[in-house]
Amino acid sequence: MSAGRPAGPPTVLMTGPLTPDVLERAARVAAGARLRALPGQDALEAEIEAADAAVTNHLAPAALARARRLRWVQSWAAGPDALLHPAMVASAVTVTSCRGNGAVPLAEHALMLMLAVDRRLPRLMAAQAAGGWDRFSHGELAGRACGIIGTGHCGADLAAKAHAFRMRTLGLRRREGPAPAAFDALYTRERLHEFLAASDFVVVTAPFTAATAGMLGAAEFAAMRRGAIYVCISRGGIARDDALLAALRSGHLAGAGLDAHAVEPLPADSPFRALDNVIVTPHMGAVTAGTRARGEAIVLENLGRFVRGESLVNVVDKVAGY
Amino acid sequence: MSAGRPAGPPTVLMTGPLTPDVLERAARVAAGARLRALPGQDALEAEIEAADAAVTNHLAPAALARARRLRWVQSWAAGPDALLHPAMVASAVTVTSCRGNGAVPLAEHALMLMLAVDRRLPRLMAAQAAGGWDRFSHGELAGRACGIIGTGHCGADLAAKAHAFRMRTLGLRRREGPAPAAFDALYTRERLHEFLAASDFVVVTAPFTAATAGMLGAAEFAAMRRGAIYVCISRGGIARDDALLAALRSGHLAGAGLDAHAVEPLPADSPFRALDNVIVTPHMGAVTAGTRARGEAIVLENLGRFVRGESLVNVVDKVAGY
Repeated sequence: MSAGRPAGPPTVLMTGPLTPDVLERAARVAAGARLRALPGQDALEAEIEAADAAVTNHLAPAALARARRLRWVQSWAAGPDALLHPAMVASAVTVTSCRGNGAVPLAEHALMLMLAVDRRLPRLMAAQAAGGWDRFSHGELAGRACGIIGTGHCGADLAAKAHAFRMRTLGLRRREGPAPAAFDALYTRERLHEFLAASDFVVVTAPFTAATAGMLGAAEFAAMRRGAIYVCISRGGIARDDALLAALRSGHLAGAGLDAHAVEPLPADSPFRALDNVIVTPHMGAVTAGTRARGEAIVLENLGRFVRGESLVNVVDKVAGY
Repeated sequence: MSAGRPAGPPTVLMTGPLTPDVLERAARVAAGARLRALPGQDALEAEIEAADAAVTNHLAPAALARARRLRWVQSWAAGPDALLHPAMVASAVTVTSCRGNGAVPLAEHALMLMLAVDRRLPRLMAAQAAGGWDRFSHGELAGRACGIIGTGHCGADLAAKAHAFRMRTLGLRRREGPAPAAFDALYTRERLHEFLAASDFVVVTAPFTAATAGMLGAAEFAAMRRGAIYVCISRGGIARDDALLAALRSGHLAGAGLDAHAVEPLPADSPFRALDNVIVTPHMGAVTAGTRARGEAIVLENLGRFVRGESLVNVVDKVAGY
């Protein structure tokens, strides 16, 4: 893990969604490098000793220990938590992510879940199938407060959309600082309970980090408004599932929309599947051609920068975790 | 149906959602009138000969023929088509509606349906129930064109929301005129096919009138883009159901979200219920406390204006039909 640039062309190992188009573009932007396209994590780790850089979502600690030339790892994910084991955090390797690639479709997914849970779409679809006509009064997003945990790309886009829905937007973030325009009010972690108590919807867009893991437990769900709706589109494990389940079963929460789960794939016997005002989706809010194209653009941009010796984009703060 | 104001306090018959609160407020704003709260259309029509005004969603032609003092009918509905039989259109009676009362929640409903159909939420919810993990690539609203038929309160609010979703917004309306701000392009009826061919989503927010009844037939669905999504939140009967069904079954349309139906309640054996990328809801996009409050405010505003001899709001162009 040397600091300067070694002599000779760098070796870059790549695995992940490598279409012929991506490989052709990679060869062009990294014309000065030795590029190796590999079929998976095992094949990549088998060659890691010769690598100056790797494009991969995973690199085991044992492989990292053998990776003496490695200076850079690029993840295809917006949240690179799968790479950030203690050995990687302690190393001098630079980690970059694809953060921002799925922000817009994730905000779309969050709004779909907010609307569908608020209007009890599962109940309406049951009536559709049963031949019924089940008409009832429901809520409006207009006039309610959208509390967004995480004020990054996705959180800011969601706040802008929530404004168009005539909602008040509250943001919770790690640090004080200049306010993204679309938030009416910003809170830091010391005021978490106050933030939760002011929100009609609580939407998690934050990365999974040491600071966010398990941050929403029984006390936090109790601090939410009775009738609040919980939505998670970034990572399971930020909420404690037992506490979330209890809040849904007691009726304290009106419902939930869950795209990200603590264990994925979500087990077939997960109790969340059977609750009648919970909508479960398979972590696919950002599975779109647009997300793939934006991620490819970030990876290729960084590949060119690495080969030219320039500074990289989307560099991860490994201690913060994103 | 005399033109001037007759001497003595006017008689106003009311039926519909008359809560104690509404009656108390009506008595206050119409202190100079004889107010009669009645339990339904039959009771109201039994007293129609003495009425100067009526607040009701229905008034049969035979009753209208007996209503010699009647000068004004206020509907609780945003779309007063149930009142506009030929005798009413030909009469000198002023009809007012509650248009605008449900615009915002209807635009919310439209976006829920757009997102849920685009992301195939019925398929995801089937996997939720079956214990599956059915992950697939889907669309983004961002970058696509939202074609909105009707540029009134609801259409304009929907266009503003669609802008927040980074969509291009196209509006179809009856007449040329100043452009509502949230539309990127406006079309009139002569350019209907061009409008349809430019839209990835076609959303009907228009009233049911002589001009809109059946306006979307086989030729119009054929003019839509392959893979387009159709949403209707105002009135069934604007599209021809046979043509819509054929376009869905052939796969020319990717799906549909239908809140308003040609026959309501939608029959238990309606073929729309069984299509796997059609979401049917029971004309309840605007069934909210907010819609009720806004409707009550319009009715009470007009009641006060009527008693004071002032001009009314939300006056319907009976020939145009809204």
